[in-house]
Amino acid sequence: MADLKAPENAAPWRARVYRVIFEHDTPAGKAFDVLLIAAIIVSVAVVMADSVHSVNARFGSTFYRAEWVFTILFTIEYLFRLGVVDRPSHYAFSFYGLVDLFAVLPTYLSLLIPGGQYLIVIRILRVLRVFRVLKLAQYVGEAQLLRRALYASRFKIAVFLFTVLTVVVVVGSLLYLIEGAEAGFTSIPRGVYWAIVTLTTVGYGDIAPQTPFGQALAAVVMIMGYGIIAVPTGIFSVELAVAYGERREWRSSAAQRTCAQCGRRGHDADSAFCKWCGAPLEG
Amino acid sequence: MADLKAPENAAPWRARVYRVIFEHDTPAGKAFDVLLIAAIIVSVAVVMADSVHSVNARFGSTFYRAEWVFTILFTIEYLFRLGVVDRPSHYAFSFYGLVDLFAVLPTYLSLLIPGGQYLIVIRILRVLRVFRVLKLAQYVGEAQLLRRALYASRFKIAVFLFTVLTVVVVVGSLLYLIEGAEAGFTSIPRGVYWAIVTLTTVGYGDIAPQTPFGQALAAVVMIMGYGIIAVPTGIFSVELAVAYGERREWRSSAAQRTCAQCGRRGHDADSAFCKWCGAPLEG
Amino acid sequence: MADLKAPENAAPWRARVYRVIFEHDTPAGKAFDVLLIAAIIVSVAVVMADSVHSVNARFGSTFYRAEWVFTILFTIEYLFRLGVVDRPSHYAFSFYGLVDLFAVLPTYLSLLIPGGQYLIVIRILRVLRVFRVLKLAQYVGEAQLLRRALYASRFKIAVFLFTVLTVVVVVGSLLYLIEGAEAGFTSIPRGVYWAIVTLTTVGYGDIAPQTPFGQALAAVVMIMGYGIIAVPTGIFSVELAVAYGERREWRSSAAQRTCAQCGRRGHDADSAFCKWCGAPLEG
Amino acid sequence: MADLKAPENAAPWRARVYRVIFEHDTPAGKAFDVLLIAAIIVSVAVVMADSVHSVNARFGSTFYRAEWVFTILFTIEYLFRLGVVDRPSHYAFSFYGLVDLFAVLPTYLSLLIPGGQYLIVIRILRVLRVFRVLKLAQYVGEAQLLRRALYASRFKIAVFLFTVLTVVVVVGSLLYLIEGAEAGFTSIPRGVYWAIVTLTTVGYGDIAPQTPFGQALAAVVMIMGYGIIAVPTGIFSVELAVAYGERREWRSSAAQRTCAQCGRRGHDADSAFCKWCGAPLEG
Repeated sequence: MADLKAPENAAPWRARVYRVIFEHDTPAGKAFDVLLIAAIIVSVAVVMADSVHSVNARFGSTFYRAEWVFTILFTIEYLFRLGVVDRPSHYAFSFYGLVDLFAVLPTYLSLLIPGGQYLIVIRILRVLRVFRVLKLAQYVGEAQLLRRALYASRFKIAVFLFTVLTVVVVVGSLLYLIEGAEAGFTSIPRGVYWAIVTLTTVGYGDIAPQTPFGQALAAVVMIMGYGIIAVPTGIFSVELAVAYGERREWRSSAAQRTCAQCGRRGHDADSAFCKWCGAPLEG
Repeated sequence: MADLKAPENAAPWRARVYRVIFEHDTPAGKAFDVLLIAAIIVSVAVVMADSVHSVNARFGSTFYRAEWVFTILFTIEYLFRLGVVDRPSHYAFSFYGLVDLFAVLPTYLSLLIPGGQYLIVIRILRVLRVFRVLKLAQYVGEAQLLRRALYASRFKIAVFLFTVLTVVVVVGSLLYLIEGAEAGFTSIPRGVYWAIVTLTTVGYGDIAPQTPFGQALAAVVMIMGYGIIAVPTGIFSVELAVAYGERREWRSSAAQRTCAQCGRRGHDADSAFCKWCGAPLEG
Repeated sequence: MADLKAPENAAPWRARVYRVIFEHDTPAGKAFDVLLIAAIIVSVAVVMADSVHSVNARFGSTFYRAEWVFTILFTIEYLFRLGVVDRPSHYAFSFYGLVDLFAVLPTYLSLLIPGGQYLIVIRILRVLRVFRVLKLAQYVGEAQLLRRALYASRFKIAVFLFTVLTVVVVVGSLLYLIEGAEAGFTSIPRGVYWAIVTLTTVGYGDIAPQTPFGQALAAVVMIMGYGIIAVPTGIFSVELAVAYGERREWRSSAAQRTCAQCGRRGHDADSAFCKWCGAPLEG
Repeated sequence: MADLKAPENAAPWRARVYRVIFEHDTPAGKAFDVLLIAAIIVSVAVVMADSVHSVNARFGSTFYRAEWVFTILFTIEYLFRLGVVDRPSHYAFSFYGLVDLFAVLPTYLSLLIPGGQYLIVIRILRVLRVFRVLKLAQYVGEAQLLRRALYASRFKIAVFLFTVLTVVVVVGSLLYLIEGAEAGFTSIPRGVYWAIVTLTTVGYGDIAPQTPFGQALAAVVMIMGYGIIAVPTGIFSVELAVAYGERREWRSSAAQRTCAQCGRRGHDADSAFCKWCGAPLEG
């Protein structure tokens, strides 16, 4: 959300509201964030509890009212967010903007479609803000490292997934031919579903081969699935090790920067100013 | 398929058809590839959908006709491929040649053996061409890296698989002796099947030990299976790291090549000509 | 328990008991430790066996008496431990102090709450002492290495767990909406439970999607769960490799220390005195 | 079996039989090995097939006779092995000596204990000889590498296993208290069995928690089990990488040896003689 800015030359109240809602470094901003996350977690818990029959029978009407209170609060918050940013459309179509919208829509939809209010649980995605709120450089840095490693492995993982999908379609069809409907393989898509359940070692057991030949083939798929878990694991481990090495290099080269004013070294990788004399750092 | 060449001194139409069907760098060739892959995916989807009882009841005859249309189209394509390559037998026995053949055979077989048309799903293997069509150096490179790591680990993986098979036979027989038929262990092969289901952590639950002693042995097998997944994963990770290191060395040594004409360095590993002056590169 | 000291200027019997109970390097201390661990294991085995209906029917009263004997012995030992340390409150609130207390409480509680005596199995935690008793530098060193790697990966693992929990809540709710009660998805919490069972590839099969759409979504979750196991594995592998590297560096730098008296090198990393002349080592 | 030698000064026939049975580098020795392994595999297959009810009904008497033929052949072989080695007791108590004995005992036992002949499947362990027969340096080398990595990780794996066992005992007892007999948790050992089934992600589903609290605890165990698979995997990966590095160093230092006669370098790590001039190599 680096591209979401408070409007320049705006009415002072807008700038103030912006600081409270979007920023995390003032006491008011922090209090708002903590309250918001608590409200999100409570509202998700209410939806989850409400879906339990016995709980709903006792607290249904309370929960109903609570859901509407939360939804109206979040709607007001959403409108404020739209109102105080420089370019509302930018925010509306950003990841968090969409999550904020989808976090309130289901309750309104439930007026039209019964049951729709359960979709509200995607509200849980709002909790992802927690990382930004905590402002823990560690979390951000570590998440970035994981993301970089995943990004670097994307082609290899695509090759792996494509191969897995091909295997699963072929094996699922074979089992459909071998086992047939009485063992639960009523169609090829069900066979493919079974193959995925087996290859990933989930193994529900709702569909399982009955004939010796089917079981022999299933055994091959299991050993294959057991073995090829090594592939994504190996890919990710290696990419993560590479990302680690790069970060270390970057850090040590960043630490080598010399302050032009006081001549000291040993700055943190992300510091833009000398921590001893305050002069701006270069490079 | 580097060894499949257009026939030299052939009729011009053969050379032209060859370029459209086998090559991917002309607009006509690209269009053909995209159409072919779309046709393959649609035809596989039709076979899968056709196997679902309720769908078959409604669209059965349409699907039946669609299958024949696809099969005839793929047959024509197969014959063209045979006709335009330099050595048809070479193509016919190559991996893709066999896949292309098996992609049409099942439909013809279904005239003799009912149900045989479902084998058509191996047609999905034709989609593997997609990697060649996309001509994404990344995909090819990454797939090669994975393949090299798998190839380098083949002896270690054989040792591992052999040990797993021995364990599984011994454990399956023991459980057969301990548990007997009432727990589902009706024979040693079924016991071995159970041992594979358990060791690979799939765990269907269709066969499960009932006696305390059988369960104790099963617990040992589970912990063993849980632990030894570390073996193929470790093997592959290490081999992949080695393959990575080799690629990096190869790339950096390739980048060190000096153009004999302009004297510049920094060429890509796969470039045969200097990218600044066009002179051929050596080494 | 480095901070638990024998009281200075204490009655000689207290110092002697302290050495037997808390230290492991005298013959009496060793004998006490071996006896203690044997008693712990036997008492846990008794509790476990006692919970089996048929065993309880035959040996119930013997086991009952055995439990009380062990509990009274452990209580006496606990009181001795409290009595001979320098600062009893320090011991009482240390990890082992609490474990020692919880190892006897359940039997007394069982007088008030029937069934409570099974909680006694946490007594098994006392066996963790075994590592300290064995005084195997290897075990301690290796456990430390694992702990350091886990500690270094804590932020990354928190990010991973948080993402997994978010996925599981969203997917569980979706399946609840899609499948409904007849497939076992009677509430969102049950859906989340199912999502965890599936994502972790446990796959009981007590709840499983029945509709094609639910199964398709489940297939995606399975492949996701199958793939993202790579994430914690990669994280831990890399951190462990880093911890390894650091230990090796530390060891080789420690071995480089020169004895000020005899001038020799090659000391162990943890030796504080020269092993050739006995002079204290620095650094 | 490096310590099993042909008796010196023995009757010539004993030396000859020794070479055929124990060694693998003469044509007769190779032919014997291939025949032996074929006989082992066939005899194990017979036992496995014999345990299948329908197969036994048809071929039972043939199989019965085949088992006795194999057993008598293997007994003769065992007696010959005992007869031609230098120190029979040494062979009799070696790993392969015991396997050879246990490979024939069950059939004799079956005269006393019905069903005992199925124990014969441990005969499959004799197939392990295959590695020695194949004399493939690769297999031996790779197996050694895996073994060294496993050996180096033994302390860390012991720490890991001990922790897992402690967790499993505590969790199994808790679930026994929470769920009770109606959910299948009829005793603490069964609870521990369930905990192992769940933690290792096998998940049969024959015992599964029914209460919300039990399911919540189970969910924690699953996520724990899903995550801590990273620990043995990480340990083994790192140890394997270390073993790799050591082998590479050893190889490159071995290749640096200079032949004292011809002065050449580049010898294989395991060559004791110069491959160019035949002079013995040192170091």
